[in-house]
Amino acid sequence: MNAEDTVTACIIVIGNEILSGRTREANVQFLARRLADLGIWLAEARVLPDDEALIARAVNRCRASYHYVFTTGGIGPTHDDVTSAAIAKAFGVALERNADAFALLRQQYKSEDMTPERLKMADLPVGAALIDNPVSRAPGFRLGNVFVLAGVPRIMQAMFEGIANELAGGKPLVSQTVAAFVPEGTMAGGLARLQEGHPQVEVGSYPFVRDGKLGVSVVLRGPEADSITAAAEEVEKLIRSLGAEPVDVGAE
Amino acid sequence: MNAEDTVTACIIVIGNEILSGRTREANVQFLARRLADLGIWLAEARVLPDDEALIARAVNRCRASYHYVFTTGGIGPTHDDVTSAAIAKAFGVALERNADAFALLRQQYKSEDMTPERLKMADLPVGAALIDNPVSRAPGFRLGNVFVLAGVPRIMQAMFEGIANELAGGKPLVSQTVAAFVPEGTMAGGLARLQEGHPQVEVGSYPFVRDGKLGVSVVLRGPEADSITAAAEEVEKLIRSLGAEPVDVGAE
Repeated sequence: MNAEDTVTACIIVIGNEILSGRTREANVQFLARRLADLGIWLAEARVLPDDEALIARAVNRCRASYHYVFTTGGIGPTHDDVTSAAIAKAFGVALERNADAFALLRQQYKSEDMTPERLKMADLPVGAALIDNPVSRAPGFRLGNVFVLAGVPRIMQAMFEGIANELAGGKPLVSQTVAAFVPEGTMAGGLARLQEGHPQVEVGSYPFVRDGKLGVSVVLRGPEADSITAAAEEVEKLIRSLGAEPVDVGAE
Repeated sequence: MNAEDTVTACIIVIGNEILSGRTREANVQFLARRLADLGIWLAEARVLPDDEALIARAVNRCRASYHYVFTTGGIGPTHDDVTSAAIAKAFGVALERNADAFALLRQQYKSEDMTPERLKMADLPVGAALIDNPVSRAPGFRLGNVFVLAGVPRIMQAMFEGIANELAGGKPLVSQTVAAFVPEGTMAGGLARLQEGHPQVEVGSYPFVRDGKLGVSVVLRGPEADSITAAAEEVEKLIRSLGAEPVDVGAE
């Protein structure tokens, strides 16, 4: 499933509020789905605290391991917004007042509101290319293969849509789900053989309980629609061989 | 905030379904909060695919860096459940049929249902100590400082509560929130000085919009209740110095 030519990505979620449990993480699922649409496999996600050195280290590991890295969070005006400084540190470049980012902030704030803290949002690593923020102006940025996005989901999503056409992926990843009221363990042997027979298809097995009955959703995923369809037909045969029928269980 | 004697933890969430965007991650927030209750700082969380080698490598990095590692997911009966094998690989030990785990499965399944795939759930790394699963029997396990839990939230939570009293934390982490309808950028300078004056308190700043008005929640967090209270009083003073009043905004 992860062939040599697979285009991969990693997300680095930045924020103490996720690690304290105050806030439930809300950006990975959106990015995972949109990257899949673009033919990019999300290979890893990390949640890190607002710590410049830890973020810089993780960014360097991830940008060497994956084609794309997306960070979310930590680009606001407060002392706990350290992402831009961390990216500069990771790349070994200085932070500088970015003229274009400054101009955008000028559109958003009156002169008397251009405090040193808000101006911090215009201090970006040397070489950064701005990512448009249509919601509240203060931009994200790209440096090399690292895309620095806001943490607020609405802003993050708008920023992502603005850069989606810059991302070079493979074939869109498609998936198909076949479900049945069969206990997962009963299906497990057949699924293992099916996975062996379809190395290019990711065969996932997700148990569920509905109306007190055990069931399993089998998710087939990969870039080749024909392979997915063929594997799905085999799952249906497997289900019937176990005396059950495929059912539509929606999002289970 | 992260003093030398801070007890730290890392969560490794295992599952392709999170990285594909099929499923929204649902265990980090619970564990983050419960660990904080126990005086353990969640320092990092990672989401990894169902890949034995990648999981083993991450487990080895994390168990060397943090006091505790918790994994969720990948301990069921199917081919994509590779967590036990990954943990064995990480520790350099063999998988063996665990007699106690086998006995638990015997309670759950009739003899004819004890398929090789279900029996896989009794194959644990040598040296593993079982973690009770009061929901569906198939146990989790502990090896060294690594706790291997189920991925289904209800089962994961029950497993965690069964081991919580084994975990040695520091003082419970307490937090206090002070909010006001002041734009985050306006408060940023004062908050930065406040953070400098209270190095033992984690000062977090989270903007929100309510009824079209910009506001900010300041979250003060740490193990010393007195320091938190003192810092909270300073935040209230800061808010009043900016011509606003602290407000109760619930969970914003």
